[in-house]
Amino acid sequence: MAARNFIQSGRKIIGIGRNFSEHAKELGNAVPTSPFFFLKPTSSYITNGQAIEIPAGCEVHHEVELAVIIGKDGRDIKAKDANDHIEGYTLALDMTARNMQDIVKKKGLPWSAAKGFDTFTPIGDFIPKEKIPDPSNVDLILTIDGKVKQNGNTKDMIFNIPSLIEHVSSIMKLQEGDVILTGTPKGVGPVHAGETVACEMATQGKVLSSLKFPVVARPGKSFV
Amino acid sequence: MAARNFIQSGRKIIGIGRNFSEHAKELGNAVPTSPFFFLKPTSSYITNGQAIEIPAGCEVHHEVELAVIIGKDGRDIKAKDANDHIEGYTLALDMTARNMQDIVKKKGLPWSAAKGFDTFTPIGDFIPKEKIPDPSNVDLILTIDGKVKQNGNTKDMIFNIPSLIEHVSSIMKLQEGDVILTGTPKGVGPVHAGETVACEMATQGKVLSSLKFPVVARPGKSFV
Ligand SMILES: [Mg+2]
Ligand SMILES: [Mg+2]
Ligand SMILES: [Mg+2]
Repeated sequence: MAARNFIQSGRKIIGIGRNFSEHAKELGNAVPTSPFFFLKPTSSYITNGQAIEIPAGCEVHHEVELAVIIGKDGRDIKAKDANDHIEGYTLALDMTARNMQDIVKKKGLPWSAAKGFDTFTPIGDFIPKEKIPDPSNVDLILTIDGKVKQNGNTKDMIFNIPSLIEHVSSIMKLQEGDVILTGTPKGVGPVHAGETVACEMATQGKVLSSLKFPVVARPGKSFV
Repeated sequence: MAARNFIQSGRKIIGIGRNFSEHAKELGNAVPTSPFFFLKPTSSYITNGQAIEIPAGCEVHHEVELAVIIGKDGRDIKAKDANDHIEGYTLALDMTARNMQDIVKKKGLPWSAAKGFDTFTPIGDFIPKEKIPDPSNVDLILTIDGKVKQNGNTKDMIFNIPSLIEHVSSIMKLQEGDVILTGTPKGVGPVHAGETVACEMATQGKVLSSLKFPVVARPGKSFV
């Protein structure tokens, strides 16, 4: 199954913005009335244990998210049919160069660099959808050096997964191996070289995924 | 060669913004002092003769561009080594929902939807780089129903191809089959259902690529 091999074969990553109202507010943003998204490159994937790199000059924030893995191509998918297009889920981090993002937002420029640096999409293994019968009740926890920074549940999403799939596929067709990052709960903040970021996904007390990433500095010129 | 098969196997499309000063000015933008880029999904590719679709409510602009096709993976590629990572070139259109882009620019939101609708990257066949010994002297011509709308030359790029490859690969690694759209000369403007868009790429009087795309309306809800 190509969907199970999404890290190697997937062609796009769609990141949903501001899908938890407490998170929208913590960054001083309005709570959205319709979903919006950005693209991340698949070249930004890293897997459990690999290092998150901090580009010079960047304040890099963690965002822990439930990732949806598409198993069946589709265009203009209706929310009621969305489940047929899901093959599985996993746990992911949507790492973000927040200070760079703040600058481009003010200038009206694309988010692609701020969201797309190498190592900015740490992600877990494929989890078949049968293991998560209710994706709208999944705990998402993130710690830095053992201290809890994010502790949310997908029940607090503004737009649920079927409506996200309907929205995205009305603009761009979804293909096997594509990943949708469904947004982060409140508690985002910076990570620094030398720290260890750990995250966990659980449902009804059962741990589904548990990942750990060391953080290192990326040498080179300053981006901000 | 996977690079020759980039339409099926490529993982990302990087679009360079405002790389021709006359084009930056025609949209009322400042001429950039360093390159910037956005991502387009590979699901937006169409090939010669396929239809460009206009989503409801969108004013869709043509942007004719030289596309660079990457043949060798690389990270932090220096400009002097960039040519080793190029496998070929082709002709492309970076279709853009301009009215949607204007709105998201004002709101500080991502460009991904405005640039990423299905059919928004019409593209030609792979051309081996040996056929274009001087990519900084390529004519790019676009007509609508036979009337010339864009007629530029890549010599007017602000940032040349090696410096674009250095910039992009300092942020995200480039992989075989990735495509860089190098920016559009002046003359962008709307296309409408019922029209035919044609474009041509030539060097020293020799036509390298010639493409034609009918334009149709995409049924559905209004996006703007
Ligand atoms: Mg996010
Ligand atoms: Mg991609
Ligand atoms: Mg363009």
